[in-house]
Amino acid sequence: MDKEKDSILKDIVLSSRIRLARNIDKIPFPNKISDEESENIINKVKNIFSKNNHKFISLKDLDSNDINCLLEKNIISSKLASNKDKSAVILADNKHSIMINEEDHIRIQSIEDGLNLEKAFEKANKIDDIIENNLEYAFDEKLGYLTACPTNIGTGLRASIMIHLPALSMNNRMPGIFNAVSQVGMTVRGRYGEGSRALGNIYQISNQITLGLEEKEIINNLKAAVNQVINEENLTRNKLMENSKYEIEDKIYRSLGILKSAVLLNNVECLNLLSSVRLGIEMSIIKDIKYETINKLILDTQPANLKNMYGKDITEKQVKYFRANMVKEEFNIVK
Amino acid sequence: MDKEKDSILKDIVLSSRIRLARNIDKIPFPNKISDEESENIINKVKNIFSKNNHKFISLKDLDSNDINCLLEKNIISSKLASNKDKSAVILADNKHSIMINEEDHIRIQSIEDGLNLEKAFEKANKIDDIIENNLEYAFDEKLGYLTACPTNIGTGLRASIMIHLPALSMNNRMPGIFNAVSQVGMTVRGRYGEGSRALGNIYQISNQITLGLEEKEIINNLKAAVNQVINEENLTRNKLMENSKYEIEDKIYRSLGILKSAVLLNNVECLNLLSSVRLGIEMSIIKDIKYETINKLILDTQPANLKNMYGKDITEKQVKYFRANMVKEEFNIVK
Repeated sequence: MDKEKDSILKDIVLSSRIRLARNIDKIPFPNKISDEESENIINKVKNIFSKNNHKFISLKDLDSNDINCLLEKNIISSKLASNKDKSAVILADNKHSIMINEEDHIRIQSIEDGLNLEKAFEKANKIDDIIENNLEYAFDEKLGYLTACPTNIGTGLRASIMIHLPALSMNNRMPGIFNAVSQVGMTVRGRYGEGSRALGNIYQISNQITLGLEEKEIINNLKAAVNQVINEENLTRNKLMENSKYEIEDKIYRSLGILKSAVLLNNVECLNLLSSVRLGIEMSIIKDIKYETINKLILDTQPANLKNMYGKDITEKQVKYFRANMVKEEFNIVK
Repeated sequence: MDKEKDSILKDIVLSSRIRLARNIDKIPFPNKISDEESENIINKVKNIFSKNNHKFISLKDLDSNDINCLLEKNIISSKLASNKDKSAVILADNKHSIMINEEDHIRIQSIEDGLNLEKAFEKANKIDDIIENNLEYAFDEKLGYLTACPTNIGTGLRASIMIHLPALSMNNRMPGIFNAVSQVGMTVRGRYGEGSRALGNIYQISNQITLGLEEKEIINNLKAAVNQVINEENLTRNKLMENSKYEIEDKIYRSLGILKSAVLLNNVECLNLLSSVRLGIEMSIIKDIKYETINKLILDTQPANLKNMYGKDITEKQVKYFRANMVKEEFNIVK
């Protein structure tokens, strides 16, 4: 029973993310520093990892499409991008990065597949330790880590998970979920952060409170909230299957049929069709397609990535054409 | 050049139909006869064909679904069905039938695939000759064949063709076509006769005038009008391909993708999707599906036929389910 539940958990949670906000002692927060000071901070962090095999990227060296690519993959935040003249990012790989001069001097980010907040936290912690061995953090004995925005003070920890909630979305249950989750100190957003619509029925649930709690408590509270949401999603799916089995199967198979045959695909439609196919896999209606295929397509079909692959000056129609081509190839080759 | 044109003609004209209206001399028209007289007329005609291998059907012996089946296949008219207590039909096969006690005592109908009005006329004529050798028709030396409705007096001939006009429909050009065609004495209707919407972009073009013209003239005038419409349709398709090649291909391939994958299909959607696939075949975009498959599905997926095949008491949802199943089977087996 528990094993089965674990497997369902793994299925609808796409990824877990830990973000630690840190600042260097005795230097003003990024919104109040000069170009020189920002350069100084970047170099301090860069030097720590110079011996590692990490990739250093100064955002001012990137064009807007490169930046959008990093945004699409959630490797950097829109805040870092908007501060591009003074910001940088260090990549261990696509799952572990250090943003420099975002809202805080240092933001460590660690992502794991599925529901695996502990592992993500462990890895973020290791990076945090390396930096702390080399730099003096702004830290207050009573408050904890000091941050530019008071909502991050304390642990500086934001734990979040990406979750696929098509049934709750279909049944217009998301406003209720938003409410319930916020009452336990968590927040739900669309995939691309605050204010954005939930494309492809993918939502991000994260903690709001960082002060007065241990890291483990924050993670456990988030997990508890996530488990409740998963439960609601599963109940709604069961109800849908009871009442509208054929309609749901119709939606799922048509979505796959369209993805396999369309000549032009816009981003929103593509994400929604992929969501339906993912639902089909999650419900064991579709059995010959892997989660990895869907997860890969969700990222790879994003506009900046397509422009990076097929030419930065391609037209909007060409973007739709190459998106449709990519999807068809993926479904025909990788089954 | 001409050969190529001929092949395009054949492609978008689904069928040609000839209908001859005849009445028996000295008997009132069907709307004014008693049950006894109607029985008498039916027997007169029935006896003529009793030696042939023809199938005789008295409409009062059929349930409403059987009648709808005949209507869906255009074997009988809705007028004959509405007069079911007094009417009958004799079938040589699905393409040649004699309706008895429709608006007129006798209505001979002959259908041929593609644009082939002459052959349809020839066959109708043969049936007409057989009847005329056995019965005295109501005929006036000056006026010609006398009919219940004055619009049929003279030749009693209605020649019509079924034509697939997706490009003109897409570009909202049909109202203009309706106008132009009516100015040359022809009329355009949706597939299922007067007043009905053109499901699947299939239209019926037929002559309005039956008096003062020879049969050959009527047929030639209709062919001329049809050729003009075909020309307009082809010009519109070429323009569409010039301006929106990818959008058209997208529509065609998606339609096929949905037909191959849907679990539930309603009639209107199914006919429209089949229309797009037929357009794909006509434009040589789809090459591995035969016209016969589409033509068969257009008829077989009609609701009364599905009920006849899968059970007359099946629900509306089951009709949609069996329709989708039939389409999938047809596309997977017959390619």
